[in-house]
Amino acid sequence: MVNLIDPTSAAFLLAERRTQPMHVGALQLFEKPEGAGRHYATELYETMSHADDIAPLFLKHPHRSLRTAGQLVWVPDEHFDILHHVRHSALPKPGRIRELFDLCSRLHGQRLGWERPLWESHVIEGLRDGRVAMYTKTHHSLVDGVSAMRLLQSVLTTDPDRRDLPPPWSVRPPEREREPRQVEWTEAPAAALHSAALIAAEAAGLPKALISTLNRSLRNDTSALSLFAPRTIFNQSITGSRRFAAQDWPVERLRAVGKATGTTINDVVMAMCSGALRSYLLDLDALPDTTLVSMVPVGLNAKQADVASAEGGNAVGAVMVQLGTHLADPADRLRAVHTSMKTGKSALAAMSPTQILAMSALGMAPSLLPMLGVNMPHPPFNVIISNVPGPRTTHYFNGARMTGTYPLSIPINGMALNITCASYDGKMCFGLTGCRRTLPSLQRMLTHLDDELAALEKAAGVS
Amino acid sequence: MVNLIDPTSAAFLLAERRTQPMHVGALQLFEKPEGAGRHYATELYETMSHADDIAPLFLKHPHRSLRTAGQLVWVPDEHFDILHHVRHSALPKPGRIRELFDLCSRLHGQRLGWERPLWESHVIEGLRDGRVAMYTKTHHSLVDGVSAMRLLQSVLTTDPDRRDLPPPWSVRPPEREREPRQVEWTEAPAAALHSAALIAAEAAGLPKALISTLNRSLRNDTSALSLFAPRTIFNQSITGSRRFAAQDWPVERLRAVGKATGTTINDVVMAMCSGALRSYLLDLDALPDTTLVSMVPVGLNAKQADVASAEGGNAVGAVMVQLGTHLADPADRLRAVHTSMKTGKSALAAMSPTQILAMSALGMAPSLLPMLGVNMPHPPFNVIISNVPGPRTTHYFNGARMTGTYPLSIPINGMALNITCASYDGKMCFGLTGCRRTLPSLQRMLTHLDDELAALEKAAGVS
Repeated sequence: MVNLIDPTSAAFLLAERRTQPMHVGALQLFEKPEGAGRHYATELYETMSHADDIAPLFLKHPHRSLRTAGQLVWVPDEHFDILHHVRHSALPKPGRIRELFDLCSRLHGQRLGWERPLWESHVIEGLRDGRVAMYTKTHHSLVDGVSAMRLLQSVLTTDPDRRDLPPPWSVRPPEREREPRQVEWTEAPAAALHSAALIAAEAAGLPKALISTLNRSLRNDTSALSLFAPRTIFNQSITGSRRFAAQDWPVERLRAVGKATGTTINDVVMAMCSGALRSYLLDLDALPDTTLVSMVPVGLNAKQADVASAEGGNAVGAVMVQLGTHLADPADRLRAVHTSMKTGKSALAAMSPTQILAMSALGMAPSLLPMLGVNMPHPPFNVIISNVPGPRTTHYFNGARMTGTYPLSIPINGMALNITCASYDGKMCFGLTGCRRTLPSLQRMLTHLDDELAALEKAAGVS
Repeated sequence: MVNLIDPTSAAFLLAERRTQPMHVGALQLFEKPEGAGRHYATELYETMSHADDIAPLFLKHPHRSLRTAGQLVWVPDEHFDILHHVRHSALPKPGRIRELFDLCSRLHGQRLGWERPLWESHVIEGLRDGRVAMYTKTHHSLVDGVSAMRLLQSVLTTDPDRRDLPPPWSVRPPEREREPRQVEWTEAPAAALHSAALIAAEAAGLPKALISTLNRSLRNDTSALSLFAPRTIFNQSITGSRRFAAQDWPVERLRAVGKATGTTINDVVMAMCSGALRSYLLDLDALPDTTLVSMVPVGLNAKQADVASAEGGNAVGAVMVQLGTHLADPADRLRAVHTSMKTGKSALAAMSPTQILAMSALGMAPSLLPMLGVNMPHPPFNVIISNVPGPRTTHYFNGARMTGTYPLSIPINGMALNITCASYDGKMCFGLTGCRRTLPSLQRMLTHLDDELAALEKAAGVS
């Protein structure tokens, strides 16, 4: 028996290039439990790599052959070898966060081979502060970024004394996983052709929806879909190597700014990014005169969600947010972001489900468009910024306190930077993933983010 | 200006697949110099990564585009970033040789991206015995295995007190490098077509030469080119992940066996491999009734060498050696190897330059044959075993004594195991590189090699 690959997953597999690996990642940091010995990381690695029961999601791999008439299907890995997927790594001295980011950057830049299930997890020792890190990557054809974070969190507990927790790959995803259509090997070619037809249908539907939203955006420049973003250094061809940087700030600080200015925490996140992008581009003498536009995925409400995937994979729409990077004043930028976000969201609410789906496809995978025959003369937006809500309380894995969780996302051709934030335990954790060649000194963005939060606090009178 | 890629290099680039990366590697082990501090590995990494002067070989990368009519050319990397190529890694605890092999296996299984120069070097710390390791990989389109080892050795010295040595990538290869043909961008398409014609000519010449040597092999089953190897577990499709194992034995022990039995050190190396392969296959209940055949590259003499590449890249012929794996007695196996090797070499000497070149191409790159339209119904041989002579005396890099140097080679589709030996400072260093999935427990081969040497010593009466 083989399982057909649904069209969206197939698209993510087919869009993959060496320069554009299509996996999402997460970096989690853990404090050793009290009384843990010198070999705690090794013990954690053993726990992680000795799972008896692996969920089907983590056992299947894509396959195509003459037998399937060249079409993609999921087949179980009959030689599943967990030691290939769960790995033990170490940082060179002095074991700073910098060495950790270097390792994560390298690991995130490597494609997952199709001959095995599309995931990898690394238990990383050698941080000089004694913490243990875990970097996990999962192909976008299996889960999206939000589901990947949720999956990793699903094995955490608020109870510091629980010790019987299985690794994430032993867990069936908590949401109802859509049953993939199972067919006999002999049926696969015909069934797969049906899949291909579905992809074609989606592709054909896309430009039509695009044109109707384009018309809307011509009438209203703060529309949810604005196709007028300036060209920036972010919008060029990328290479396959990655640069990752991450840091967290207390949510309380963001909340105070929001409260004093009548904006949301998410607005403040966007304003921090806006100011940081401005400073970064100013340093490089590459700031455009007009505002940068960010694609921001937003959750759909229950009524709209039925148009999206049942797995939650694509149950999001996308708002195009004008970041106000051309404005010199932090308070002006926060106001600009707030207005653009609000208008975008209400435009989104007024759209038809098909339009939202088309835009969602645009947002989640602009790199798919050329493949589907849609030609985009200008970048539809400059960067992708998303904000994923996470657990609000302290969580543990087998007694080890998680101190932070940082997303690594997917830069794509023409979109060299992705900023994804995840809140956890009173912290807003920023994960910046970029193309190593296109974005020099990406880590400077962390300083700029920090400076911008301070500037916003000052402007809001809460510092 | 662009440089044309010669047909052989182009063939190695075009034969590359995710499951079949075409780079050679070397693992070197160094003892810290006396008085070296805790941060010696970091210092070594700094020395390695701060080269001002990079040799052209390490600066060029393959490129093809509309401008070159889709043909491959070498272009200099205009954004050369040495920190992408020279890396600092660490082993997890307990830092045994086992953890080192794990890391090397992983690093060796990753393809080099064509968007950058085709090499990487890792300074590895964390060995519990205090040694520092260096793993270096270089694409086969730049150098062959022998040249790669020579290049790494070219920066070593016998003087433990010298401290001014540059890293290998600052050094022009000692042999006269064939000047690549430089052409203007506008000429590239036409010139590249000429290159393609050369590849076609080589391909066309191949089967003819093959048939004449095939005829010879039909008359003489110990011919240099035997096309009758049994199917074994080594001769199946491979995956992209690798398993590496290495160990060394005193050359003196091998020499003693050779002296007592009238065989060469190389014969003893082959007999060790024969016995180890036999034990390995017996363990898996997969030993064929007939002898395994190994392809063994041998150096051509001066008169013949003019038919091969001026770079030394392919200045070798190949002998097909019947390993005698079906024989139960170690002494019988050594005799079988000795006879087969001798006959093979004399057959090689009697061949025409064209035949030798054809066979050499067969041996070095059997995976190229299907690409060139040559269809091979049976594996022409089962494994590749080569033995590369290295320096006989102790060598140092900036005061650090090299204690061993182990080759990592290229398993290819249908040829899942490659054994390459390099002699150094009185040691015979074995490097075994295999497909991780096809060859379970490859490291057991090390025990088998050790047992076989002891058995040969006993049989020769020198133990």
